[in-house]
Amino acid sequence: MKKVNKVNLSMLCDFYELTMGNGYFESGYKDSITYFDMFFRTVPDGGGFAIAAGLEQVIDYIENLHFDEEDIEFLRQKKIFSKDFLEYLRGFKFTGDIYAVPEGTPIFPNEPIVTVRAPAIQAQLIETFLLMSINHQTLIATKANRIVRAAQGRTVLEFGSRRAHGSDAAVTGARAAYIGGCAGTACTLTDQIYGIPAGGTMAHSWVQMFDSEYDAFRAYCEVYPENAVLLVDTYNTLKSGVPNAIRVFKEMLVPRGITNFAIRLDSGDISYLSKRARKMLDEAGLHSCKIVASNALDEHLINDLMMQGAKIDIFGVGERLITSKSSPVFDGVYKLTAIEQNGEIIPKIKVSENTAKITNPHFKRVYRLYDRESGMAIADQLCVYDEVIDDSKPLTIFDPLATWKRKTLTSFIAKPLLVPIFKNGKRVYESPPIEEIKAHCEQQVATLWDEVKRFENPHNYYVDLSQKLLDIKLKLVKESAGKE
Amino acid sequence: MKKVNKVNLSMLCDFYELTMGNGYFESGYKDSITYFDMFFRTVPDGGGFAIAAGLEQVIDYIENLHFDEEDIEFLRQKKIFSKDFLEYLRGFKFTGDIYAVPEGTPIFPNEPIVTVRAPAIQAQLIETFLLMSINHQTLIATKANRIVRAAQGRTVLEFGSRRAHGSDAAVTGARAAYIGGCAGTACTLTDQIYGIPAGGTMAHSWVQMFDSEYDAFRAYCEVYPENAVLLVDTYNTLKSGVPNAIRVFKEMLVPRGITNFAIRLDSGDISYLSKRARKMLDEAGLHSCKIVASNALDEHLINDLMMQGAKIDIFGVGERLITSKSSPVFDGVYKLTAIEQNGEIIPKIKVSENTAKITNPHFKRVYRLYDRESGMAIADQLCVYDEVIDDSKPLTIFDPLATWKRKTLTSFIAKPLLVPIFKNGKRVYESPPIEEIKAHCEQQVATLWDEVKRFENPHNYYVDLSQKLLDIKLKLVKESAGKE
Repeated sequence: MKKVNKVNLSMLCDFYELTMGNGYFESGYKDSITYFDMFFRTVPDGGGFAIAAGLEQVIDYIENLHFDEEDIEFLRQKKIFSKDFLEYLRGFKFTGDIYAVPEGTPIFPNEPIVTVRAPAIQAQLIETFLLMSINHQTLIATKANRIVRAAQGRTVLEFGSRRAHGSDAAVTGARAAYIGGCAGTACTLTDQIYGIPAGGTMAHSWVQMFDSEYDAFRAYCEVYPENAVLLVDTYNTLKSGVPNAIRVFKEMLVPRGITNFAIRLDSGDISYLSKRARKMLDEAGLHSCKIVASNALDEHLINDLMMQGAKIDIFGVGERLITSKSSPVFDGVYKLTAIEQNGEIIPKIKVSENTAKITNPHFKRVYRLYDRESGMAIADQLCVYDEVIDDSKPLTIFDPLATWKRKTLTSFIAKPLLVPIFKNGKRVYESPPIEEIKAHCEQQVATLWDEVKRFENPHNYYVDLSQKLLDIKLKLVKESAGKE
Repeated sequence: MKKVNKVNLSMLCDFYELTMGNGYFESGYKDSITYFDMFFRTVPDGGGFAIAAGLEQVIDYIENLHFDEEDIEFLRQKKIFSKDFLEYLRGFKFTGDIYAVPEGTPIFPNEPIVTVRAPAIQAQLIETFLLMSINHQTLIATKANRIVRAAQGRTVLEFGSRRAHGSDAAVTGARAAYIGGCAGTACTLTDQIYGIPAGGTMAHSWVQMFDSEYDAFRAYCEVYPENAVLLVDTYNTLKSGVPNAIRVFKEMLVPRGITNFAIRLDSGDISYLSKRARKMLDEAGLHSCKIVASNALDEHLINDLMMQGAKIDIFGVGERLITSKSSPVFDGVYKLTAIEQNGEIIPKIKVSENTAKITNPHFKRVYRLYDRESGMAIADQLCVYDEVIDDSKPLTIFDPLATWKRKTLTSFIAKPLLVPIFKNGKRVYESPPIEEIKAHCEQQVATLWDEVKRFENPHNYYVDLSQKLLDIKLKLVKESAGKE
């Protein structure tokens, strides 16, 4: 794998992280321990869950966090930071704790997906990059998972680099798409860095370069007899493209016993063309020839194509995946949940006129509760950090906004959702190989009921609070008026 | 400015660029000269024009284009590339010509915005990065320009890093937003690399860290007496936030003669709150206090706020700008337009069942025609490379899809739209300083009629073909059936 030059991204932060940092430093809060949660409020595309991704890049960032001389000089010239603060930045490193949901895990609104415990300046400084990386990759992994589920077992490939929002979006976007279930990417650099299989064969320009389509196909199969995918829509898909492809396959590949070839449709009505092409290929005895389709696809169009019986084996998905076009924002936020004073953890809350937007205070633990028999996920339970769920005893859970809706679980397994990533600034977690992350995603999505997986108007998965946490929350809401 | 470690992005290409490259190499087309155009088909958000951006990063990429030993080793392991091709990549550099529209220029569908003349392998290899960079930054510059026009002279700041699609989207996205008209960004690294002013003051967490909102505001103004922007919506905007801000400004800043402070609204009904806050500030004599608003803003919401007389001086725009949320894809494509054979330029075309999607063939020149008196842009004219428009003589232009719609221009100025960027692989163009690009954008947008600038259903600006180019196009369309 390629060792890319790591650009120092420590300065990739909102400027207010630095003004607040200097402010905490100057106001005597330099060493105050704070707790922050990252959580999100809405699932993209109105879906039932998201797929966590982007943690590995956060880990790299935290481990590389430092300020170079030129960074400090740049900040000095702003003439608003104290000499002592700039000196402090010179030796800056992250010394806190981070807990996070492993990549590939389904996640739900209003539960912590990352918890940070660190001195105020540090916890604040990492906000922008942490949100950006996890918001971005979670967005793409979530979209990929929707598209892959729509394809019902057909292969989905990520083809979107040219429409990605810059180079990082192309490369880490393809990584996230793979976690969400894509089988590969068109992006060469993603393969080189992350070992995600890249593939691709020809554009229309290849066909146009030659005197005829037939010559172009022949030339291609001459160089690449194995895995040849011929693009058949440059002139006329059914009158010319498919017949020429069949002729070349039969002349050049079939006699050599080669059967792993395909055609690609990239325009026109994919459903109609794929059925006609399949018929022509079958009538020519080319049953092994696969059909690849790529043209403004997403989960809805693939769903429709599947319902219409389109004869497509492989979907190439571009701009609508790499930008999550129909829902291009993942709304993860990063909120203060507690501070330490004299060794005591003091919970903090951010109220809002909208009840659902009031934050869940305190340093928390999150459990995912699975039915012991079926293995299916029942609910997530947010607890105070010192609460432990004993899954050998019955547990009553309830809706925190409608506390009369209660359910007692008697046969369940409780698994902590977040795992330690950093302890006192030291990494205590090894990112799994990408194949394991992808497999974890598939396996965990299988624990969700179909009702939660519906594309439109899915069933709300329960994210509940323990009684202790709810009591603290309600007390803080009442007290918050006093802060005014 | 920060000299960032430049990551070698030569491998950031769709894999098919490499398979085609090797194919051209093996098929004897290695040195065949090809011409490619980048153009786009639809303006994002249904607007009337886009703002070109992203060229500077393409220039950097082309100048750095090379394959390292580890890249070649990676490709060798794919076992599909010839030894000679891999050897060729070892000494690979770009030796062709590139013409492009300068950044900040308004551009229209179906006209070349980049033209590449280079050996087939080279022209093909740069496709992915070139499209990605220009698609991305043009998208964001275009969105920023819409938002800035909606704000009618009020300041617009870019606040979106945390919702950007990765680090490059945050940094170059903020650059593009600045070109499009934003006055600054929250992203520190963008300031450091591109000299685009970054700013920012506090998050809700700052206010929550202190025992009271009043204490938090005092602590902030203690450290930052100049340009203090107090976030007033942590508890209750009108009952607590604004009164506390007024109190602190009057206690700490006014007595020192400081008047450059502001409050920031980040939730609730921005229109109502800004009017009430303005009244409270004015009644307290704080007429100089500015009001910053930031909460899911875009051109439509800003338009509405302006119509309702909201008292906002500065708009902070986040996710809806940095992702161009309502229209997150810029659909630039890269198509073969000609090849050279024995020194002759042979035009090529890509037909389509949809007439409007048939490409404009040939190596072309593009002129923008301005009215000599008003200075306003009239139309863009695509010509064959050897045609020159003499603006001292009358010129008849016509709609290429409705050739009976004709207009004769008698008093106009014709300016070439594309300028040479590379000649024989050597850069012949210096990217202007970012301030000049931004000024060029503002000045060129001023040459467009209001009808073209309307947000919804704007007037179609004319992009016409010369008679010579149209004749060649129609001839090629007829001939294309023969390629089948």
